[in-house]
Amino acid sequence: MDRPALAASARSANARSAPDRLLAVLAAFDHTHPALSLSDISRRAGLTLSTAHRLVAALTDWGALERDGSGTYHVGLRLWEVAALAPRGLALRQVALPYLEDLYEATHENVQLAVRDGHEVVYTEWLSGRSAVGVHIRVGARWPLHVTGVGLVLLAHGVPELQEAYCARPLTSYTAHTITDPVRLRRMLAEVRRTGVAVSSRQVTDDALSVAAPVRGPDGAVTAAVSVVVPHAHAQVPVLAPAVRLAARGISRALGWQPQGRQD
Amino acid sequence: MDRPALAASARSANARSAPDRLLAVLAAFDHTHPALSLSDISRRAGLTLSTAHRLVAALTDWGALERDGSGTYHVGLRLWEVAALAPRGLALRQVALPYLEDLYEATHENVQLAVRDGHEVVYTEWLSGRSAVGVHIRVGARWPLHVTGVGLVLLAHGVPELQEAYCARPLTSYTAHTITDPVRLRRMLAEVRRTGVAVSSRQVTDDALSVAAPVRGPDGAVTAAVSVVVPHAHAQVPVLAPAVRLAARGISRALGWQPQGRQD
Repeated sequence: MDRPALAASARSANARSAPDRLLAVLAAFDHTHPALSLSDISRRAGLTLSTAHRLVAALTDWGALERDGSGTYHVGLRLWEVAALAPRGLALRQVALPYLEDLYEATHENVQLAVRDGHEVVYTEWLSGRSAVGVHIRVGARWPLHVTGVGLVLLAHGVPELQEAYCARPLTSYTAHTITDPVRLRRMLAEVRRTGVAVSSRQVTDDALSVAAPVRGPDGAVTAAVSVVVPHAHAQVPVLAPAVRLAARGISRALGWQPQGRQD
Repeated sequence: MDRPALAASARSANARSAPDRLLAVLAAFDHTHPALSLSDISRRAGLTLSTAHRLVAALTDWGALERDGSGTYHVGLRLWEVAALAPRGLALRQVALPYLEDLYEATHENVQLAVRDGHEVVYTEWLSGRSAVGVHIRVGARWPLHVTGVGLVLLAHGVPELQEAYCARPLTSYTAHTITDPVRLRRMLAEVRRTGVAVSSRQVTDDALSVAAPVRGPDGAVTAAVSVVVPHAHAQVPVLAPAVRLAARGISRALGWQPQGRQD
Protein backbone atom coordinates (compact mmCIF):
# COMPACT_ATOMS: atom_id res chain seq x y z
CA MET A 1 0.00 0.00 0.00
CA ASP A 2 1.49 3.39 -0.97
CA ARG A 3 1.66 6.41 1.31
CA PRO A 4 -1.54 8.25 0.32
CA ALA A 5 -3.58 5.01 0.54
CA LEU A 6 -2.14 4.22 3.96
CA ALA A 7 -2.93 7.73 5.16
CA ALA A 8 -6.51 7.51 3.83
CA SER A 9 -6.96 4.15 5.50
CA ALA A 10 -5.59 5.54 8.77
CA ARG A 11 -7.94 8.54 8.52
CA SER A 12 -10.94 6.26 7.93
CA ALA A 13 -9.97 4.08 10.93
CA ASN A 14 -9.40 7.17 13.05
CA ALA A 15 -12.82 8.55 12.10
CA ARG A 16 -14.38 5.81 14.22
CA SER A 17 -14.20 6.25 17.98
CA ALA A 18 -12.15 3.90 20.14
CA PRO A 19 -15.27 2.22 21.60
CA ASP A 20 -16.72 1.74 18.09
CA ARG A 21 -13.56 -0.01 16.92
CA LEU A 22 -13.54 -2.36 19.93
CA LEU A 23 -17.23 -3.16 19.52
CA ALA A 24 -16.66 -3.78 15.79
CA VAL A 25 -14.29 -6.59 16.80
CA LEU A 26 -17.01 -8.21 18.92
CA ALA A 27 -19.59 -7.67 16.14
CA ALA A 28 -17.33 -9.57 13.71
CA PHE A 29 -18.56 -12.74 15.46
CA ASP A 30 -22.03 -14.05 14.63
CA HIS A 31 -23.68 -17.46 14.44
CA THR A 32 -22.33 -18.13 10.95
CA HIS A 33 -18.88 -16.85 12.04
CA PRO A 34 -18.35 -18.13 15.60
CA ALA A 35 -14.60 -18.74 15.04
CA LEU A 36 -12.34 -16.21 13.28
CA SER A 37 -8.65 -15.75 12.52
CA LEU A 38 -7.02 -12.38 13.19
CA SER A 39 -7.20 -11.50 9.50
CA ASP A 40 -10.89 -12.50 9.35
CA ILE A 41 -11.54 -10.17 12.29
CA SER A 42 -9.55 -7.35 10.66
CA ARG A 43 -11.51 -7.72 7.42
CA ARG A 44 -14.97 -8.15 8.98
CA ALA A 45 -14.46 -5.26 11.43
CA GLY A 46 -12.99 -2.98 8.76
CA LEU A 47 -9.79 -2.42 10.78
CA THR A 48 -6.13 -2.49 9.80
CA LEU A 49 -4.36 -5.67 10.82
CA SER A 50 -2.27 -3.82 13.42
CA THR A 51 -5.33 -2.17 15.02
CA ALA A 52 -7.20 -5.47 14.98
CA HIS A 53 -4.18 -7.16 16.58
CA ARG A 54 -3.99 -4.60 19.39
CA LEU A 55 -7.75 -4.74 20.12
CA VAL A 56 -7.95 -8.54 19.92
CA ALA A 57 -5.00 -8.76 22.35
CA ALA A 58 -6.81 -6.47 24.83
CA LEU A 59 -10.06 -8.45 24.49
CA THR A 60 -8.20 -11.75 24.89
CA ASP A 61 -6.32 -10.53 27.99
CA TRP A 62 -9.63 -9.53 29.55
CA GLY A 63 -11.33 -12.83 28.60
CA ALA A 64 -13.86 -11.45 26.11
CA LEU A 65 -12.18 -13.56 23.43
CA GLU A 66 -10.33 -16.88 23.69
CA ARG A 67 -7.62 -18.13 21.33
CA ASP A 68 -7.45 -21.85 20.62
CA GLY A 69 -4.37 -23.95 19.81
CA SER A 70 -4.66 -23.23 16.07
CA GLY A 71 -4.69 -19.44 16.61
CA THR A 72 -8.44 -19.11 15.95
CA TYR A 73 -10.43 -16.72 18.15
CA HIS A 74 -13.78 -17.50 19.81
CA VAL A 75 -16.04 -15.54 22.14
CA GLY A 76 -14.72 -16.01 25.67
CA LEU A 77 -16.15 -17.20 28.95
CA ARG A 78 -15.75 -13.83 30.70
CA LEU A 79 -17.97 -12.05 28.16
CA TRP A 80 -20.50 -14.82 28.65
CA GLU A 81 -20.38 -14.29 32.41
CA VAL A 82 -21.09 -10.55 32.06
CA ALA A 83 -23.79 -11.22 29.48
CA ALA A 84 -25.43 -13.69 31.86
CA LEU A 85 -26.51 -10.57 33.83
CA ALA A 86 -28.66 -9.27 30.95
CA PRO A 87 -32.20 -8.98 32.38
CA ARG A 88 -33.69 -9.96 29.00
CA GLY A 89 -31.15 -12.73 28.38
CA LEU A 90 -30.01 -15.32 30.89
CA ALA A 91 -31.48 -13.48 33.89
CA LEU A 92 -35.02 -13.77 32.46
CA ARG A 93 -34.27 -17.32 31.43
CA GLN A 94 -33.21 -18.29 34.96
CA VAL A 95 -36.64 -17.20 36.27
CA ALA A 96 -38.47 -18.80 33.33
CA LEU A 97 -36.67 -22.14 33.07
CA PRO A 98 -38.65 -24.15 35.66
CA TYR A 99 -41.92 -23.13 33.93
CA LEU A 100 -40.49 -23.91 30.50
CA GLU A 101 -39.41 -27.31 31.81
CA ASP A 102 -42.94 -27.95 33.09
CA LEU A 103 -44.35 -26.97 29.69
CA TYR A 104 -41.87 -29.31 28.05
CA GLU A 105 -42.77 -32.17 30.41
CA ALA A 106 -46.49 -31.55 29.73
CA THR A 107 -46.17 -31.43 25.93
CA HIS A 108 -42.77 -32.99 24.98
CA GLU A 109 -42.66 -30.49 22.11
CA ASN A 110 -40.24 -27.65 21.29
CA VAL A 111 -40.62 -24.92 23.92
CA GLN A 112 -39.35 -21.34 23.42
CA LEU A 113 -38.92 -18.09 25.30
CA ALA A 114 -38.44 -14.90 23.26
CA VAL A 115 -38.21 -11.12 23.62
CA ARG A 116 -38.63 -8.29 21.14
CA ASP A 117 -35.76 -6.22 19.75
CA GLY A 118 -37.04 -3.57 17.38
CA HIS A 119 -39.02 -5.26 14.63
CA GLU A 120 -37.65 -8.70 15.39
CA VAL A 121 -38.16 -11.44 17.91
CA VAL A 122 -35.04 -12.91 19.57
CA TYR A 123 -35.20 -16.42 21.02
CA THR A 124 -33.57 -16.46 24.46
CA GLU A 125 -34.41 -20.04 25.39
CA TRP A 126 -35.16 -23.20 23.47
CA LEU A 127 -35.94 -26.66 24.85
CA SER A 128 -36.03 -29.26 22.06
CA GLY A 129 -38.64 -31.99 21.98
CA ARG A 130 -37.31 -35.36 20.78
CA SER A 131 -40.10 -36.11 18.33
CA ALA A 132 -40.55 -32.44 17.67
CA VAL A 133 -40.93 -30.75 14.32
CA GLY A 134 -37.70 -29.97 12.48
CA VAL A 135 -37.65 -26.21 12.84
CA HIS A 136 -34.19 -24.76 12.99
CA ILE A 137 -34.37 -22.15 15.67
CA ARG A 138 -31.52 -21.65 18.12
CA VAL A 139 -30.88 -19.39 21.09
CA GLY A 140 -30.10 -15.96 19.68
CA ALA A 141 -32.05 -16.57 16.44
CA ARG A 142 -34.10 -13.67 15.07
CA TRP A 143 -37.32 -13.59 13.02
CA PRO A 144 -39.59 -10.75 11.90
CA LEU A 145 -42.46 -10.25 14.38
CA HIS A 146 -45.37 -11.24 12.10
CA VAL A 147 -44.33 -14.81 11.28
CA THR A 148 -43.98 -16.58 14.64
CA GLY A 149 -46.39 -17.03 17.55
CA VAL A 150 -44.07 -15.25 20.00
CA GLY A 151 -43.59 -12.40 17.51
CA LEU A 152 -47.36 -11.97 17.08
CA VAL A 153 -47.77 -11.83 20.88
CA LEU A 154 -45.03 -9.21 21.27
CA LEU A 155 -46.39 -7.14 18.37
CA ALA A 156 -50.02 -7.41 19.54
CA HIS A 157 -49.08 -6.14 23.00
CA GLY A 158 -46.63 -3.49 21.76
CA VAL A 159 -47.37 0.24 21.79
CA PRO A 160 -49.63 1.51 18.96
CA GLU A 161 -46.66 3.32 17.33
CA LEU A 162 -44.83 -0.01 16.97
CA GLN A 163 -47.86 -1.64 15.37
CA GLU A 164 -48.36 1.32 12.99
CA ALA A 165 -44.72 1.31 11.92
CA TYR A 166 -44.68 -2.48 11.54
CA CYS A 167 -47.84 -2.71 9.46
CA ALA A 168 -46.64 0.14 7.22
CA ARG A 169 -43.57 -1.79 6.05
CA PRO A 170 -43.49 -4.71 3.59
CA LEU A 171 -44.21 -8.03 5.33
CA THR A 172 -41.58 -10.63 4.39
CA SER A 173 -43.01 -13.92 3.16
CA TYR A 174 -41.50 -17.34 3.94
CA THR A 175 -44.26 -19.73 2.81
CA ALA A 176 -47.56 -19.49 0.92
CA HIS A 177 -49.20 -19.13 4.36
CA THR A 178 -47.19 -16.14 5.64
CA ILE A 179 -49.41 -13.12 6.33
CA THR A 180 -48.37 -10.34 3.97
CA ASP A 181 -51.58 -8.29 4.07
CA PRO A 182 -51.42 -5.58 6.79
CA VAL A 183 -55.24 -5.60 7.17
CA ARG A 184 -55.20 -9.33 7.91
CA LEU A 185 -52.25 -8.82 10.28
CA ARG A 186 -54.13 -6.12 12.25
CA ARG A 187 -57.14 -8.43 12.53
CA MET A 188 -54.89 -11.20 13.81
CA LEU A 189 -53.25 -8.90 16.39
CA ALA A 190 -56.72 -7.94 17.73
CA GLU A 191 -57.52 -11.65 17.98
CA VAL A 192 -54.29 -12.27 19.91
CA ARG A 193 -55.22 -9.57 22.44
CA ARG A 194 -58.79 -10.92 22.73
CA THR A 195 -57.93 -14.60 23.19
CA GLY A 196 -54.68 -14.30 25.14
CA VAL A 197 -52.83 -16.60 22.72
CA ALA A 198 -51.30 -16.31 19.26
CA VAL A 199 -51.42 -19.15 16.77
CA SER A 200 -49.02 -18.96 13.84
CA SER A 201 -49.71 -21.69 11.31
CA ARG A 202 -47.16 -22.65 8.62
CA GLN A 203 -45.87 -19.09 8.34
CA VAL A 204 -42.18 -19.99 8.83
CA THR A 205 -42.08 -23.49 7.33
CA ASP A 206 -44.81 -25.53 5.63
CA ASP A 207 -45.02 -28.09 8.43
CA ALA A 208 -44.89 -26.12 11.70
CA LEU A 209 -47.43 -24.40 13.91
CA SER A 210 -46.72 -22.38 17.05
CA VAL A 211 -48.93 -21.39 19.96
CA ALA A 212 -47.68 -18.47 22.08
CA ALA A 213 -48.75 -16.48 25.16
CA PRO A 214 -47.53 -13.24 26.79
CA VAL A 215 -45.20 -12.93 29.80
CA ARG A 216 -45.84 -9.78 31.87
CA GLY A 217 -43.52 -7.83 34.15
CA PRO A 218 -44.47 -6.34 37.54
CA ASP A 219 -46.16 -3.34 35.84
CA GLY A 220 -48.32 -5.57 33.63
CA ALA A 221 -46.41 -4.72 30.44
CA VAL A 222 -45.68 -7.68 28.14
CA THR A 223 -41.92 -8.22 28.26
CA ALA A 224 -41.52 -11.67 26.71
CA ALA A 225 -43.48 -14.52 25.15
CA VAL A 226 -43.57 -18.30 25.54
CA SER A 227 -44.48 -20.77 22.81
CA VAL A 228 -44.55 -24.38 21.71
CA VAL A 229 -43.87 -25.34 18.11
CA VAL A 230 -45.53 -28.54 16.87
CA PRO A 231 -46.01 -30.33 13.54
CA HIS A 232 -48.94 -28.66 11.80
CA ALA A 233 -50.39 -32.00 10.71
CA HIS A 234 -51.41 -33.08 14.22
CA ALA A 235 -51.49 -29.80 16.13
CA GLN A 236 -54.18 -29.65 18.81
CA VAL A 237 -54.42 -25.95 19.52
CA PRO A 238 -57.26 -26.25 22.11
CA VAL A 239 -55.06 -28.64 24.11
CA LEU A 240 -51.84 -26.63 23.78
CA ALA A 241 -53.24 -23.15 24.42
CA PRO A 242 -54.07 -23.59 28.14
CA ALA A 243 -50.67 -25.18 28.83
CA VAL A 244 -48.80 -22.35 27.09
CA ARG A 245 -50.91 -19.71 28.90
CA LEU A 246 -50.28 -21.37 32.26
CA ALA A 247 -46.53 -21.43 31.70
CA ALA A 248 -46.53 -17.76 30.64
CA ARG A 249 -48.61 -16.75 33.67
CA GLY A 250 -46.32 -18.72 35.97
CA ILE A 251 -43.29 -16.86 34.66
CA SER A 252 -45.16 -13.54 34.94
CA ARG A 253 -45.97 -14.23 38.61
CA ALA A 254 -42.36 -15.20 39.28
CA LEU A 255 -41.35 -11.83 37.77
CA GLY A 256 -43.66 -10.03 40.21
CA TRP A 257 -46.81 -9.60 38.10
CA GLN A 258 -50.12 -9.78 39.94
CA PRO A 259 -53.27 -10.37 37.90
CA GLN A 260 -55.87 -7.61 38.22
CA GLY A 261 -59.03 -8.89 36.59
CA ARG A 262 -58.64 -10.33 33.12
CA GLN A 263 -55.35 -9.25 31.59
CA ASP A 264 -54.37 -11.81 29.07
CA MET B 1 -10.80 18.39 43.62
CA ASP B 2 -7.85 20.79 43.25
CA ARG B 3 -5.73 21.12 40.12
CA PRO B 4 -2.88 18.75 40.96
CA ALA B 5 -5.36 16.07 42.07
CA LEU B 6 -7.38 16.48 38.89
CA ALA B 7 -4.23 16.26 36.81
CA ALA B 8 -3.12 13.11 38.67
CA SER B 9 -6.54 11.55 38.16
CA ALA B 10 -6.46 12.42 34.45
CA ARG B 11 -2.97 10.91 34.14
CA SER B 12 -4.11 7.72 35.85
CA ALA B 13 -7.15 7.46 33.54
CA ASN B 14 -4.96 8.15 30.51
CA ALA B 15 -2.50 5.50 31.61
CA ARG B 16 -5.15 2.87 30.81
CA SER B 17 -5.68 2.03 27.16
CA ALA B 18 -8.97 2.79 25.41
CA PRO B 19 -9.98 -0.91 25.29
CA ASP B 20 -9.18 -1.27 29.01
CA ARG B 21 -11.43 1.66 29.88
CA LEU B 22 -14.33 0.26 27.83
CA LEU B 23 -13.91 -3.21 29.33
CA ALA B 24 -13.77 -1.65 32.81
CA VAL B 25 -17.31 -0.36 32.18
CA LEU B 26 -18.52 -3.89 31.38
CA ALA B 27 -16.62 -5.29 34.37
CA ALA B 28 -18.47 -2.85 36.66
CA PHE B 29 -21.47 -5.20 36.32
CA ASP B 30 -21.48 -8.43 38.32
CA HIS B 31 -24.10 -10.63 39.94
CA THR B 32 -24.29 -8.43 43.03
CA HIS B 33 -24.37 -5.29 40.82
CA PRO B 34 -26.56 -6.18 37.81
CA ALA B 35 -28.08 -2.66 37.65
CA LEU B 36 -25.97 0.50 37.93
CA SER B 37 -26.41 4.26 37.63
CA LEU B 38 -23.93 6.28 35.59
CA SER B 39 -22.19 7.45 38.76
CA ASP B 40 -22.02 3.84 40.06
CA ILE B 41 -20.36 2.83 36.80
CA SER B 42 -17.93 5.76 36.95
CA ARG B 43 -16.93 4.88 40.52
CA ARG B 44 -16.72 1.09 40.05
CA ALA B 45 -14.76 1.41 36.77
CA GLY B 46 -12.43 4.09 38.17
CA LEU B 47 -13.30 6.54 35.39
CA THR B 48 -14.19 10.23 35.44
CA LEU B 49 -17.91 10.89 35.06
CA SER B 50 -17.41 12.40 31.60
CA THR B 51 -15.37 9.44 30.33
CA ALA B 52 -17.88 7.01 31.82
CA HIS B 53 -20.70 8.97 30.18
CA ARG B 54 -19.05 8.79 26.76
CA LEU B 55 -18.26 5.06 27.01
CA VAL B 56 -21.69 4.14 28.43
CA ALA B 57 -23.33 6.07 25.54
CA ALA B 58 -21.27 4.10 22.99
CA LEU B 59 -22.08 0.78 24.68
CA THR B 60 -25.79 1.68 24.89
CA ASP B 61 -25.93 2.73 21.21
CA TRP B 62 -24.41 -0.60 20.27
CA GLY B 63 -26.76 -2.57 22.55
CA ALA B 64 -24.16 -3.89 25.00
CA LEU B 65 -25.96 -1.93 27.74
CA GLU B 66 -29.64 -1.00 28.08
CA ARG B 67 -31.02 1.99 30.01
CA ASP B 68 -34.37 1.57 31.75
CA GLY B 69 -37.02 4.24 32.44
CA SER B 70 -35.37 5.28 35.71
CA GLY B 71 -31.98 5.90 34.06
CA THR B 72 -30.42 2.69 35.44
CA TYR B 73 -28.16 0.66 33.16
CA HIS B 74 -28.31 -3.11 32.67
CA VAL B 75 -26.39 -5.52 30.45
CA GLY B 76 -28.06 -5.49 27.03
CA LEU B 77 -29.50 -8.09 24.71
CA ARG B 78 -26.90 -7.56 21.97
CA LEU B 79 -24.02 -8.44 24.31
CA TRP B 80 -25.98 -11.52 25.30
CA GLU B 81 -26.39 -12.48 21.64
CA VAL B 82 -22.65 -12.20 20.97
CA ALA B 83 -21.86 -14.05 24.20
CA ALA B 84 -24.23 -16.84 23.15
CA LEU B 85 -21.51 -17.77 20.63
CA ALA B 86 -18.98 -18.59 23.38
CA PRO B 87 -18.04 -22.25 22.80
CA ARG B 88 -17.68 -22.80 26.55
CA GLY B 89 -20.86 -20.84 27.40
CA LEU B 90 -24.19 -21.10 25.66
CA ALA B 91 -22.81 -23.01 22.66
CA LEU B 92 -21.70 -25.91 24.90
CA ARG B 93 -24.93 -25.64 26.82
CA GLN B 94 -27.00 -25.97 23.62
CA VAL B 95 -25.36 -29.31 22.89
CA ALA B 96 -25.56 -30.42 26.52
CA LEU B 97 -29.10 -29.37 27.44
CA PRO B 98 -31.02 -32.45 26.19
CA TYR B 99 -28.70 -34.72 28.20
CA LEU B 100 -28.97 -32.48 31.27
CA GLU B 101 -32.77 -32.59 30.92
CA ASP B 102 -32.65 -36.40 30.78
CA LEU B 103 -30.48 -36.43 33.90
CA TYR B 104 -32.94 -34.10 35.59
CA GLU B 105 -35.91 -36.28 34.57
CA ALA B 106 -34.10 -39.37 35.86
CA THR B 107 -33.12 -37.86 39.22
CA HIS B 108 -35.30 -34.74 39.80
CA GLU B 109 -32.32 -33.23 41.58
CA ASN B 110 -30.18 -30.13 40.85
CA VAL B 111 -28.22 -30.75 37.64
CA GLN B 112 -25.15 -28.68 36.64
CA LEU B 113 -22.76 -28.18 33.77
CA ALA B 114 -19.44 -26.46 34.48
CA VAL B 115 -16.11 -25.56 32.88
CA ARG B 116 -12.74 -24.59 34.33
CA ASP B 117 -11.34 -21.07 34.25
CA GLY B 118 -7.89 -20.97 35.86
CA HIS B 119 -8.19 -22.30 39.42
CA GLU B 120 -11.96 -21.98 39.50
CA VAL B 121 -14.98 -23.81 38.20
CA VAL B 122 -17.67 -21.73 36.44
CA TYR B 123 -21.23 -23.06 36.28
CA THR B 124 -22.60 -22.63 32.76
CA GLU B 125 -25.89 -24.45 33.26
CA TRP B 126 -28.12 -25.20 36.21
CA LEU B 127 -31.43 -27.06 36.25
CA SER B 128 -33.09 -26.82 39.67
CA GLY B 129 -34.82 -29.77 41.22
CA ARG B 130 -38.03 -28.92 43.09
CA SER B 131 -37.32 -30.90 46.24
CA ALA B 132 -33.63 -30.32 45.78
CA VAL B 133 -31.11 -29.27 48.40
CA GLY B 134 -30.88 -25.54 49.06
CA VAL B 135 -27.52 -24.84 47.50
CA HIS B 136 -27.21 -21.38 46.10
CA ILE B 137 -25.41 -21.82 42.82
CA ARG B 138 -26.42 -19.86 39.76
CA VAL B 139 -25.27 -19.70 36.15
CA GLY B 140 -21.97 -17.82 36.16
CA ALA B 141 -21.13 -18.77 39.77
CA ARG B 142 -17.51 -19.63 40.57
CA TRP B 143 -15.96 -21.96 43.18
CA PRO B 144 -12.40 -23.13 43.81
CA LEU B 145 -11.73 -26.45 42.06
CA HIS B 146 -11.21 -28.65 45.14
CA VAL B 147 -14.61 -28.18 46.82
CA THR B 148 -17.19 -29.27 44.22
CA GLY B 149 -17.65 -32.50 42.27
CA VAL B 150 -17.30 -30.73 38.91
CA GLY B 151 -14.18 -28.93 40.14
CA LEU B 152 -12.57 -32.18 41.28
CA VAL B 153 -13.28 -33.72 37.85
CA LEU B 154 -11.77 -30.75 36.01
CA LEU B 155 -8.72 -30.69 38.31
CA ALA B 156 -8.22 -34.47 38.17
CA HIS B 157 -8.19 -34.41 34.36
CA GLY B 158 -6.14 -31.21 34.06
CA VAL B 159 -2.50 -31.12 33.00
CA PRO B 160 0.06 -32.09 35.70
CA GLU B 161 1.29 -28.44 35.92
CA LEU B 162 -2.24 -27.33 36.91
CA GLN B 163 -2.45 -29.99 39.61
CA GLU B 164 1.02 -29.10 40.94
CA ALA B 165 0.22 -25.39 41.09
CA TYR B 166 -3.20 -26.01 42.64
CA CYS B 167 -1.96 -28.36 45.37
CA ALA B 168 0.90 -25.96 46.22
CA ARG B 169 -1.46 -23.15 47.19
CA PRO B 170 -3.59 -22.92 50.38
CA LEU B 171 -6.88 -24.82 50.02
CA THR B 172 -9.79 -22.62 51.12
CA SER B 173 -12.12 -24.26 53.65
CA TYR B 174 -15.91 -23.80 53.71
CA THR B 175 -17.02 -26.51 56.17
CA ALA B 176 -15.36 -28.92 58.58
CA HIS B 177 -15.43 -31.43 55.69
CA THR B 178 -13.57 -29.36 53.09
CA ILE B 179 -10.33 -31.02 51.98
CA THR B 180 -7.45 -28.74 53.01
CA ASP B 181 -4.66 -31.32 52.98
CA PRO B 182 -2.87 -31.47 49.59
CA VAL B 183 -1.89 -35.10 50.14
CA ARG B 184 -5.53 -36.07 50.66
CA LEU B 185 -6.52 -33.97 47.63
CA ARG B 186 -3.98 -35.76 45.38
CA ARG B 187 -5.30 -39.11 46.59
CA MET B 188 -8.84 -38.00 45.78
CA LEU B 189 -7.82 -36.82 42.29
CA ALA B 190 -6.30 -40.22 41.55
CA GLU B 191 -9.54 -41.84 42.72
CA VAL B 192 -11.55 -39.57 40.38
CA ARG B 193 -9.42 -40.63 37.41
CA ARG B 194 -9.69 -44.32 38.43
CA THR B 195 -13.46 -44.44 38.98
CA GLY B 196 -14.62 -41.94 36.35
CA VAL B 197 -16.68 -39.97 38.89
CA ALA B 198 -15.98 -37.42 41.61
CA VAL B 199 -17.94 -37.35 44.85
CA SER B 200 -17.73 -34.18 46.91
CA SER B 201 -19.41 -34.60 50.27
CA ARG B 202 -20.36 -31.59 52.44
CA GLN B 203 -17.37 -29.58 51.26
CA VAL B 204 -19.39 -26.49 50.25
CA THR B 205 -22.28 -26.66 52.73
CA ASP B 206 -22.94 -29.07 55.59
CA ASP B 207 -25.95 -30.68 53.91
CA ALA B 208 -25.00 -31.16 50.24
CA LEU B 209 -23.23 -33.86 48.25
CA SER B 210 -22.36 -33.75 44.55
CA VAL B 211 -21.53 -36.50 42.07
CA ALA B 212 -19.75 -35.40 38.88
CA ALA B 213 -18.37 -36.92 35.66
CA PRO B 214 -16.14 -35.64 32.84
CA VAL B 215 -17.29 -34.33 29.45
CA ARG B 216 -14.73 -34.92 26.67
CA GLY B 217 -14.17 -33.08 23.41
CA PRO B 218 -13.37 -34.70 20.03
CA ASP B 219 -9.68 -35.09 21.01
CA GLY B 220 -10.55 -36.88 24.26
CA ALA B 221 -9.53 -33.95 26.48
CA VAL B 222 -11.88 -33.16 29.37
CA THR B 223 -13.51 -29.83 28.56
CA ALA B 224 -16.43 -29.71 31.00
CA ALA B 225 -18.09 -31.63 33.81
CA VAL B 226 -21.66 -32.62 34.70
CA SER B 227 -22.98 -33.13 38.21
CA VAL B 228 -26.01 -33.62 40.41
CA VAL B 229 -26.19 -32.06 43.87
CA VAL B 230 -28.34 -33.87 46.43
CA PRO B 231 -29.01 -33.66 50.18
CA HIS B 232 -26.18 -35.49 51.92
CA ALA B 233 -28.57 -37.18 54.34
CA HIS B 234 -30.16 -39.45 51.73
CA ALA B 235 -27.60 -39.42 48.94
CA GLN B 236 -27.34 -42.71 47.04
CA VAL B 237 -24.04 -42.38 45.25
CA PRO B 238 -24.14 -45.88 43.65
CA VAL B 239 -27.49 -44.97 42.07
CA LEU B 240 -26.50 -41.47 40.96
CA ALA B 241 -23.04 -42.23 39.57
CA PRO B 242 -24.14 -44.26 36.51
CA ALA B 243 -26.78 -41.64 35.58
CA VAL B 244 -24.26 -38.79 35.82
CA ARG B 245 -21.67 -40.76 33.81
CA LEU B 246 -24.23 -41.57 31.11
CA ALA B 247 -25.23 -37.92 30.78
CA ALA B 248 -21.58 -36.83 30.56
CA ARG B 249 -20.81 -39.50 27.93
CA GLY B 250 -23.88 -38.49 25.93
CA ILE B 251 -22.69 -34.89 25.82
CA SER B 252 -19.16 -36.04 24.91
CA ARG B 253 -20.50 -38.07 21.99
CA ALA B 254 -22.61 -35.12 20.83
CA LEU B 255 -19.42 -33.01 20.90
CA GLY B 256 -17.70 -35.54 18.60
CA TRP B 257 -15.87 -37.71 21.14
CA GLN B 258 -15.49 -41.38 20.29
CA PRO B 259 -14.63 -43.78 23.09
CA GLN B 260 -11.40 -45.71 22.51
CA GLY B 261 -11.28 -48.41 25.12
CA ARG B 262 -11.85 -47.30 28.69
CA GLN B 263 -11.43 -43.54 28.95
CA ASP B 264 -13.46 -42.33 31.88
